[in-house]
Amino acid sequence: MGLLRAAGVVYKPVEQLDLGPDSNEIYVEADIKAPRMGGLLAKIFAWILESRIFGALAFYILKRLNRVHKFISNATVEEPPMFVPLHPYVADYSRAYRNGEITPLKVAERFIYAVHESSSRPLSIAFFINYDAEDILRQATESTLRYERGAPISALDGVPIAVKDEIDCSPYPTTGGTKWLHKVRPCTGDACCVARLRSCGAILVGKTNMHELGATPSGINPHYGPPRNPYDPSRISGGSSSGSAAVVCAGLCPAALGVDGGGSVRMPASLSGVVGFKPTFGGIPHSGVLPLNWTVGMVGVLAGTLEDAFIVYAAISGHLPSHEPTTLPPKIHFPLLNSTNPISNIKLAIYGEWFNDCNEEIRLCCSNAVQLLCERYNWKTIVAINFPVVKTVEVTIPELEVMRLAHYVTIGSECSTALSSHLENLGRSEFGWDARVVVDIYGAFNSNEYIKAQKLRYRHMQIHNKIFAKADVIVTPTTGMTAYSISKNALKTGELDYVNGGTIIRYQIAGNFLGLPAITVPVGYDKAGLPIGLQFIGKPWSEPTLMHLAFAMQALCITDYRKPKVFYDILGKK
Amino acid sequence: MGLLRAAGVVYKPVEQLDLGPDSNEIYVEADIKAPRMGGLLAKIFAWILESRIFGALAFYILKRLNRVHKFISNATVEEPPMFVPLHPYVADYSRAYRNGEITPLKVAERFIYAVHESSSRPLSIAFFINYDAEDILRQATESTLRYERGAPISALDGVPIAVKDEIDCSPYPTTGGTKWLHKVRPCTGDACCVARLRSCGAILVGKTNMHELGATPSGINPHYGPPRNPYDPSRISGGSSSGSAAVVCAGLCPAALGVDGGGSVRMPASLSGVVGFKPTFGGIPHSGVLPLNWTVGMVGVLAGTLEDAFIVYAAISGHLPSHEPTTLPPKIHFPLLNSTNPISNIKLAIYGEWFNDCNEEIRLCCSNAVQLLCERYNWKTIVAINFPVVKTVEVTIPELEVMRLAHYVTIGSECSTALSSHLENLGRSEFGWDARVVVDIYGAFNSNEYIKAQKLRYRHMQIHNKIFAKADVIVTPTTGMTAYSISKNALKTGELDYVNGGTIIRYQIAGNFLGLPAITVPVGYDKAGLPIGLQFIGKPWSEPTLMHLAFAMQALCITDYRKPKVFYDILGKK
Repeated sequence: MGLLRAAGVVYKPVEQLDLGPDSNEIYVEADIKAPRMGGLLAKIFAWILESRIFGALAFYILKRLNRVHKFISNATVEEPPMFVPLHPYVADYSRAYRNGEITPLKVAERFIYAVHESSSRPLSIAFFINYDAEDILRQATESTLRYERGAPISALDGVPIAVKDEIDCSPYPTTGGTKWLHKVRPCTGDACCVARLRSCGAILVGKTNMHELGATPSGINPHYGPPRNPYDPSRISGGSSSGSAAVVCAGLCPAALGVDGGGSVRMPASLSGVVGFKPTFGGIPHSGVLPLNWTVGMVGVLAGTLEDAFIVYAAISGHLPSHEPTTLPPKIHFPLLNSTNPISNIKLAIYGEWFNDCNEEIRLCCSNAVQLLCERYNWKTIVAINFPVVKTVEVTIPELEVMRLAHYVTIGSECSTALSSHLENLGRSEFGWDARVVVDIYGAFNSNEYIKAQKLRYRHMQIHNKIFAKADVIVTPTTGMTAYSISKNALKTGELDYVNGGTIIRYQIAGNFLGLPAITVPVGYDKAGLPIGLQFIGKPWSEPTLMHLAFAMQALCITDYRKPKVFYDILGKK
Repeated sequence: MGLLRAAGVVYKPVEQLDLGPDSNEIYVEADIKAPRMGGLLAKIFAWILESRIFGALAFYILKRLNRVHKFISNATVEEPPMFVPLHPYVADYSRAYRNGEITPLKVAERFIYAVHESSSRPLSIAFFINYDAEDILRQATESTLRYERGAPISALDGVPIAVKDEIDCSPYPTTGGTKWLHKVRPCTGDACCVARLRSCGAILVGKTNMHELGATPSGINPHYGPPRNPYDPSRISGGSSSGSAAVVCAGLCPAALGVDGGGSVRMPASLSGVVGFKPTFGGIPHSGVLPLNWTVGMVGVLAGTLEDAFIVYAAISGHLPSHEPTTLPPKIHFPLLNSTNPISNIKLAIYGEWFNDCNEEIRLCCSNAVQLLCERYNWKTIVAINFPVVKTVEVTIPELEVMRLAHYVTIGSECSTALSSHLENLGRSEFGWDARVVVDIYGAFNSNEYIKAQKLRYRHMQIHNKIFAKADVIVTPTTGMTAYSISKNALKTGELDYVNGGTIIRYQIAGNFLGLPAITVPVGYDKAGLPIGLQFIGKPWSEPTLMHLAFAMQALCITDYRKPKVFYDILGKK
């Protein structure tokens, strides 16, 4: 036992960590030891994990190979545990409706036609798990009448918005991408965020596809089909909010809700070339969202433009007034925007080794974007009045791989607990093979590992506080690679691809594990024409700064926009 | 597997629970399936638990027999987890010193003599793990000089106070009752609470004995000897703050600090006939206390009288001003005492079946005490002006056994994590056999069980909130039995006695798991002359109400005081 035991890391006190550019803290690359598996291989893997004897051995080997023993189980962490990262505390449609260019009803009809067409051969894109044409038309008729009376509720009145099937929305069941969860947990009404959108007059157009239980970033769902990437339908749109990213990308609606527990809003947004925004933990009520975890996940917004992302955010966080004259741009009563601290100078933290740990095209594209931003918002060449100067600061953020593992232990343990009472009464055969393996692994952590992960959470909160003393925002690529191809056997069994998964999730963890607000904006395309995203990670409640930066970045990159192969001009702009 | 699986309880929504006197919620009696073990049996048990194959089986059987599977592991709990129970938010010595009847130095000399005598044959009471005569005399000399100058620092100046060996106090190591912990974790200075006492002029007289790692309520320590009960030295003084209770009971000092993670202050206080007070979670800084858990334990006070308990509490919570003229009674700047809500009418919640689940002598004694309290503080026979009327309300508090198990899973998992980095480098032989088995069991919970325990914490917080809507304070006996005899083999191997332990701990859990303030006051003796305590459990931050009640209770019962067999009249009152 002594010989078998992997030595645990002894973490240095945070005050002794050098976070400057010349730190001797080593950047530990992800080294995920797991084969990409689909089909029979995935099945065999599941069987092994579920076997009493071989299972224990397999988990031991997996934990050891993937450095869970070294970085978590056997590690020495001085910090006390931190359980919840709590901190001290959308317009073309509207214009067209008001100008009488089109009605919500007409938009709804076009929407229904487009969804029907795209889900049929030859495209076969599974954007939605559920949508009800009758319910959509009813909402659209009501909205049309409001515009006819000259009394739209808000800037969102008549705007089609899709909802990830992890969030309750009447009259649909909430499947969480499974075949069974809605049977044991009936949806009894709108989630709080959905109710707020509805009260603003938005048309809720159905429940988007997602990775089963949000289990991996591929977003492929063996039960409901793959929500393909509109830029290249042979590729993934990214997950787990895969459908929400794809519908926005394909122009079916200007915005959609997702849930982000481990980058599940920002990753698909980036891979599908749209904006993805995950607010500060606790900023949006979680009631009516499937309780798949309690401390890392929250509702986020996917949208075609930043304006749309923020207007939806204002609505779901309770700051978009309904029943008030609609103005353009809409008056958002959003206290964070009216910050009393004027932003005078934005420092962007860059950890070079981490920033560059992605494929070369992403690296070049993102570096250029940051450089462009700093050049345009330089004290010498101010392009915008009242806009702060942007500079970069080189930093070292140690133990990023450790944070990824600690986050995995946390989301896994919580998800396993959340499902435990259902798993009891459920055959494992109800699951896709990929989700089945994930659920097996999720259940393999002991309480020591979970609590130690919370100690690491506190430690990383302190490390990030120190980084935020040096800079305002951390800037990274959003993902380590662009959208990869959907393999054939993944369509039936789902796919286990922890290595590509690890590359996609590389820059996501702080947003979830530490509850930090983060936003991804499209900044370019690789040679294959696939979108690339840049991410800004802010201090808690620093949404206004993120917003400023993202708008500036969007303004600089917008000329480069390329239309996806699959695209529906629902509003009929052109 | 399906057949072996114990069905889990499906908990009703809290709003459907009937908490009234005629509720059909069944009181589940503790049914602890574990033999009382000492000597060879304890050793064999430890070996089995540590064996890879039999260990897993043994834990399975233990969890199943003790209803962990039924009530925790496989249970269905709707509530989200709650990780930390956070809520929105001494005088004869002093008089004698000021009057020149005695000096602090004389008190210190008497104290040192008494400790020397009691720790030698024939008494052989191991009150302290460490005390340093020289250091005590130095402090006493300084205090004496202050009194000579007419400038004592506070009402605590020169008052001897002992500190449980789980709390850092210079110049002593902090052993936690072990033979090794102080070697791997050197004490580098005073804990915050100790520093506050020191700044008030108190004489810190040494580190009191305790159960190894606070593991069980017996308080027997195989390494440092048993801190016997001054009322009957053949019996336990209760644990884990066994030494702190015994020194106060024996008159060695008027007050002592303890740490209460599962009744560890209140249980020994009750069994030793002194006052034990555990404030609301978060009320006293925890820095410098051994981090054996993070969400259930906190510093508490043991004292001969309520006055002394509250003055020490005022000091360690930062509300006793030092460097201010000493007045008698001391002016305590304690905002909770100056509550703006006058207490007009105190309703005591009694859950009859629970209250009565103790031995008959305790039941009678505690019932009489409550009856006396209600009779004296009745609207018809007001005995004190400005004192509220006290009434009882019958309630049902469901799932108390579940709460005990959930607390056990929590404290066990956290303690195991806290020690994990040390356990790695440590032979199991460094432990007493009882602590060794406890540490083995503590490490056997998985993350699912830990998180589910936190769901149950949230559930019980809601249940208790509903109880506190019906009543102000819950009243119970403090323990289910009085002090039991120390068995011979327990002296060497320690003792595992989960059944007696469960009876002693029966009324303690809400104070720790839900972070509620609770106080025990002595209310009588059984036929063997062993003390019986009555406990008041309050709403968060309801310390003033508890104080009022406890003072009233003390005033009614004080005539009955019996001197312990082992008692030192340090102050030389008589």
